[in-house]
Amino acid sequence: MQAIIKARSEVGLELADVPRPNPGPRDVLIRVQKTGICGTDRHIYEWDAWAASRIKPPMVVGHEFVGIVADVGVGVKMVQPGDRVSGEGHIGCGYCYACRTGQSHICEKVDILGVDINGCFAPYVVLPESNIWKVDPAIPDDHACLFDPFGNAMHTVMAQPISGRQVLVVGCGSIGLMAVGILHVGGADLIIAIEPNPFKREIAKKMGADVVMEEIDPKEIKALTDRDGVDVVLEMSGNPKAIVKAFDCIRNGGDVALLGIPPGEVCITWAKQIIFRGLTIRGINGRRMYETWYQSERFLRHYPELIEPVITHRLPFDRFEDGIKAMQDGTGCKVVLDWTNAKE
Amino acid sequence: MQAIIKARSEVGLELADVPRPNPGPRDVLIRVQKTGICGTDRHIYEWDAWAASRIKPPMVVGHEFVGIVADVGVGVKMVQPGDRVSGEGHIGCGYCYACRTGQSHICEKVDILGVDINGCFAPYVVLPESNIWKVDPAIPDDHACLFDPFGNAMHTVMAQPISGRQVLVVGCGSIGLMAVGILHVGGADLIIAIEPNPFKREIAKKMGADVVMEEIDPKEIKALTDRDGVDVVLEMSGNPKAIVKAFDCIRNGGDVALLGIPPGEVCITWAKQIIFRGLTIRGINGRRMYETWYQSERFLRHYPELIEPVITHRLPFDRFEDGIKAMQDGTGCKVVLDWTNAKE
Amino acid sequence: MQAIIKARSEVGLELADVPRPNPGPRDVLIRVQKTGICGTDRHIYEWDAWAASRIKPPMVVGHEFVGIVADVGVGVKMVQPGDRVSGEGHIGCGYCYACRTGQSHICEKVDILGVDINGCFAPYVVLPESNIWKVDPAIPDDHACLFDPFGNAMHTVMAQPISGRQVLVVGCGSIGLMAVGILHVGGADLIIAIEPNPFKREIAKKMGADVVMEEIDPKEIKALTDRDGVDVVLEMSGNPKAIVKAFDCIRNGGDVALLGIPPGEVCITWAKQIIFRGLTIRGINGRRMYETWYQSERFLRHYPELIEPVITHRLPFDRFEDGIKAMQDGTGCKVVLDWTNAKE
Amino acid sequence: MQAIIKARSEVGLELADVPRPNPGPRDVLIRVQKTGICGTDRHIYEWDAWAASRIKPPMVVGHEFVGIVADVGVGVKMVQPGDRVSGEGHIGCGYCYACRTGQSHICEKVDILGVDINGCFAPYVVLPESNIWKVDPAIPDDHACLFDPFGNAMHTVMAQPISGRQVLVVGCGSIGLMAVGILHVGGADLIIAIEPNPFKREIAKKMGADVVMEEIDPKEIKALTDRDGVDVVLEMSGNPKAIVKAFDCIRNGGDVALLGIPPGEVCITWAKQIIFRGLTIRGINGRRMYETWYQSERFLRHYPELIEPVITHRLPFDRFEDGIKAMQDGTGCKVVLDWTNAKE
Repeated sequence: MQAIIKARSEVGLELADVPRPNPGPRDVLIRVQKTGICGTDRHIYEWDAWAASRIKPPMVVGHEFVGIVADVGVGVKMVQPGDRVSGEGHIGCGYCYACRTGQSHICEKVDILGVDINGCFAPYVVLPESNIWKVDPAIPDDHACLFDPFGNAMHTVMAQPISGRQVLVVGCGSIGLMAVGILHVGGADLIIAIEPNPFKREIAKKMGADVVMEEIDPKEIKALTDRDGVDVVLEMSGNPKAIVKAFDCIRNGGDVALLGIPPGEVCITWAKQIIFRGLTIRGINGRRMYETWYQSERFLRHYPELIEPVITHRLPFDRFEDGIKAMQDGTGCKVVLDWTNAKE
Repeated sequence: MQAIIKARSEVGLELADVPRPNPGPRDVLIRVQKTGICGTDRHIYEWDAWAASRIKPPMVVGHEFVGIVADVGVGVKMVQPGDRVSGEGHIGCGYCYACRTGQSHICEKVDILGVDINGCFAPYVVLPESNIWKVDPAIPDDHACLFDPFGNAMHTVMAQPISGRQVLVVGCGSIGLMAVGILHVGGADLIIAIEPNPFKREIAKKMGADVVMEEIDPKEIKALTDRDGVDVVLEMSGNPKAIVKAFDCIRNGGDVALLGIPPGEVCITWAKQIIFRGLTIRGINGRRMYETWYQSERFLRHYPELIEPVITHRLPFDRFEDGIKAMQDGTGCKVVLDWTNAKE
Repeated sequence: MQAIIKARSEVGLELADVPRPNPGPRDVLIRVQKTGICGTDRHIYEWDAWAASRIKPPMVVGHEFVGIVADVGVGVKMVQPGDRVSGEGHIGCGYCYACRTGQSHICEKVDILGVDINGCFAPYVVLPESNIWKVDPAIPDDHACLFDPFGNAMHTVMAQPISGRQVLVVGCGSIGLMAVGILHVGGADLIIAIEPNPFKREIAKKMGADVVMEEIDPKEIKALTDRDGVDVVLEMSGNPKAIVKAFDCIRNGGDVALLGIPPGEVCITWAKQIIFRGLTIRGINGRRMYETWYQSERFLRHYPELIEPVITHRLPFDRFEDGIKAMQDGTGCKVVLDWTNAKE
Repeated sequence: MQAIIKARSEVGLELADVPRPNPGPRDVLIRVQKTGICGTDRHIYEWDAWAASRIKPPMVVGHEFVGIVADVGVGVKMVQPGDRVSGEGHIGCGYCYACRTGQSHICEKVDILGVDINGCFAPYVVLPESNIWKVDPAIPDDHACLFDPFGNAMHTVMAQPISGRQVLVVGCGSIGLMAVGILHVGGADLIIAIEPNPFKREIAKKMGADVVMEEIDPKEIKALTDRDGVDVVLEMSGNPKAIVKAFDCIRNGGDVALLGIPPGEVCITWAKQIIFRGLTIRGINGRRMYETWYQSERFLRHYPELIEPVITHRLPFDRFEDGIKAMQDGTGCKVVLDWTNAKE
């Protein structure tokens, strides 16, 4: 079958023929219909330091998908051929403390689809039954293939109360934008969104941001709030300078959820910015399995507007490089690839 | 009356005659019996950068005390002359969001006894009724004057569950030592205490530490735990290097409580050490008013061993410099001053 | 001044001339503009068993109000004459465990305005400064006088997470209706409202209920949900039969918030309906001081639709009996009285 | 092999020869060493209404055990023959909302070992790998076979904070006694234990109860507490009269955990006893999988005294009726059976 693979330890991704995977006794084989391109896929394409240290070519990449069950192992009970499914790409070991206490999203031995094992940028992908999610019929394919990033947004937003609170969202890539939307329908009192790209700032407004700014201005932000600072910061940028400034915008006793991945170190004055303020800071990884999936399903079946404006490109699978370029030059946000015509 | 005052913007503290304070209609006048010397008092003595920026001499210092009510304002109902009391030195504004929602320990307009207003290193001190704590008769004066630092320890320990958990305590000054003791009687599974001073390490053992180490060795610490790292870190050192190392000792999904005050910035790799790990980090300030006081009272009336080994010096008030010297040279831990013979 | 008073231990309320109250040093005197009639006032009017056991005539009744500060005691700092204010009618003792730990809404020695002390159905009322709430200018008087019942609804809704959850609201009196509205703007996934009165069911639809039913039909309700029952029950009826049925509508692990006041005992099979199900049940009393007030302010300034449809009658103060009759015969929901023309 | 079975729908249990079970591909076959007799086994013996409605004879009963892995299915990775294991007897469906969100202890389709499927009162038992618990070598067999009831106690205690709190334990059967022990090492401030049987009251004292009483006397209990009532009630009796009285012993804002199973209805005045008090009530079922197991392991390896005094009888398997009789006549508490000499 055709697949998008990382063939060699260098920049780029390419289409190549690879063998169709076979499901084991507890696995599900899925005919992929649509996939989303994640920032992670772009890192793999660009072969940055993280990618070079983690990816072992050759391998199929990609982890955001929706498809139709094609075959199941003998031990599988949850789905059958013909079911429409998405799936969680973090495959926990199943045996560690995290996995046995409902926290497999932070399993220390996790395998990630399209990172550690062959991914979903192909007409067929295999996942263990435990990681399969049967999709509600009310959610269209273009949205269902984005459960993974939408779940990042949902997990970050739901990490603290948000109804009636004033929230600063730092960084409006796809996930930041979805977070703005979830805050909006979840009853946040004030949503301030920060994003340097004017195109994405426009989308943030559509998603429900009350105020959008090019960069963080703590004085201005404090002036917009009731309590000398926002109640909650959702950090989605990974930009160390923005992080430091964001900590100057929050009231004493506030909550910070960190999803963006800063390269290298972040240096801040903990005494003044964290300790005396009595902040609570939560590192957010992946999505809760499967609490976040249940929450996402409920929001997505009611509110297509939480995803629709974020999709800027719908392309056939073999134009994936156009999608990555759009992401690189800032003209694209979320790119969805169509795999229906791929050679099987 | 005689008092220990910061007379001028320079190193040192001195005994001087000052006027006896008068209580307003909602205030309580207390005849001080015993006081504790805090690390903060030492900073004020040494006139470091923080002290120079905050303290406005001349003023009476000190904030840890126990005493007998001498007089009360007309509006005071909670206590009467003769009652034995301690008191919370953080005086919230009473009107802000924090103060009106049970979080006055993080009031943004707080006045601190002995820092922003005249303190308790004197035979008489005045506090508003709201800040008074009537002391349980089972708690001796030497312990009752230490509600403030004991409350710091209690607040830090109680910020997350600790029964059955493996805990790293970084820094065994007075507060760290008391935290070790509280963990011990609170059912922690494993207590690892870090402290460079061998004299304090000995006290840590007495307080119930299972393992004491001179400095943090992440490999060794991980080997002592069940889950490739401790469940909880209590940071009581304020040492930036120790903080960075401590973050290498904690399991995914663990809790970190930060009480120690690092000078300047702390630089760590948030991605690897906080975000991917799904940590929860809480900045701890002061003590909860008055949840922490209630908790402290209950522990102190049952367990004198949570404070007794930490008191290394009992001195008359006019030998306060001996106490500060013992703190400086590491031969002292908690120093208690006796004010019964001070000139009133 | 004219006031609505309970003059004698019998059915009824009457207009009478009473002395204008004087503020003490920490009190605020308020010129009342608008008041709401609460179900409690109706109980006092009807002189039921509860009223007969608690109320000591003669006294001024009423506790829902908005007004203008007319005078302040010497110790008052938060407001000054001319400020527009509402106020919390539960006056905590200030000294007990609940009051000193941010939970004065459950103070065991509480005095309630218009129940234990003279109330606000008069042109002037006095409250301690601690209980005053300065009203946001964006909130009109007709809504601002209803902070108290709106706060009941808010406290009940916020007692557990509600974003993305399926919720059963049992009883659509004023408070139940406001709860439906808060759930709607707070992102609940499904709101099922139960109410026998068809007039109130119509209002429930306007407030955002997805489904309204005359009475609880557990089979039908379960069929509407994803998980064999709702995630949350908000009990606002106080009807013992409804309560028992409501417990048959909730999924394992669900949350129940109890605000309605059942007369006498409630008999249910705890094993099957609570214990095996792993439910969490919370008794809700009053409003959190002042967390709930802050939350209410934020919702009310954005969403007038959370109160407007609930107000069915706006009457001058001297037509209060018409309001109570409308409440009794089910043609009225929330009744607002205007005190601007009362004899001072 | 020999096994204790429920042969017919009538009172009694009997030893009989049954076939040895075979493990499926994801199952583990265990050579049972020791088992505990649970109150549930006694209900099955006595063939009460619950047993008659649930149990389908003939079947092997029993669910508390420790043993050695004898064989494993091809898909099993966690253990191998020779490993010493206990296991969770609640086998979740694995596919429902509860099972997929870390709450399989409240799965609505649970199968229970020795209740719905053949149990462990036999030399061999089969369990799915997911339910296996590898036992820490520091925990002796006699204690390891009691992870199940100890886990009930642990789950109930850990359902709310207990360090520094005053707790009423209603009912000192095996689980209530273990709860007293866990409270003691977990730093509870005051433990009041209620138990009509004087023999068990003696054990309660050994476990660390500060006060033991024959029955609940609310006045006396309130007099023992600081806040006009205990902070926490752990209900382990299932006695409706005791439950009603227990609700008169708790302070406003307190926590109640319900583990005991009352037959029929419980009738209490919700207004006065739950709602105005602002209580939080939690129904407790089974044990958290596997958070509770991790907690239990840590306590049991340090504190053998949390179980040892509760074991009153150690018998060979074929004297099981003597054990049940001791439970019935109140001379026994926990009975452990030895299966080493059973015919395989």
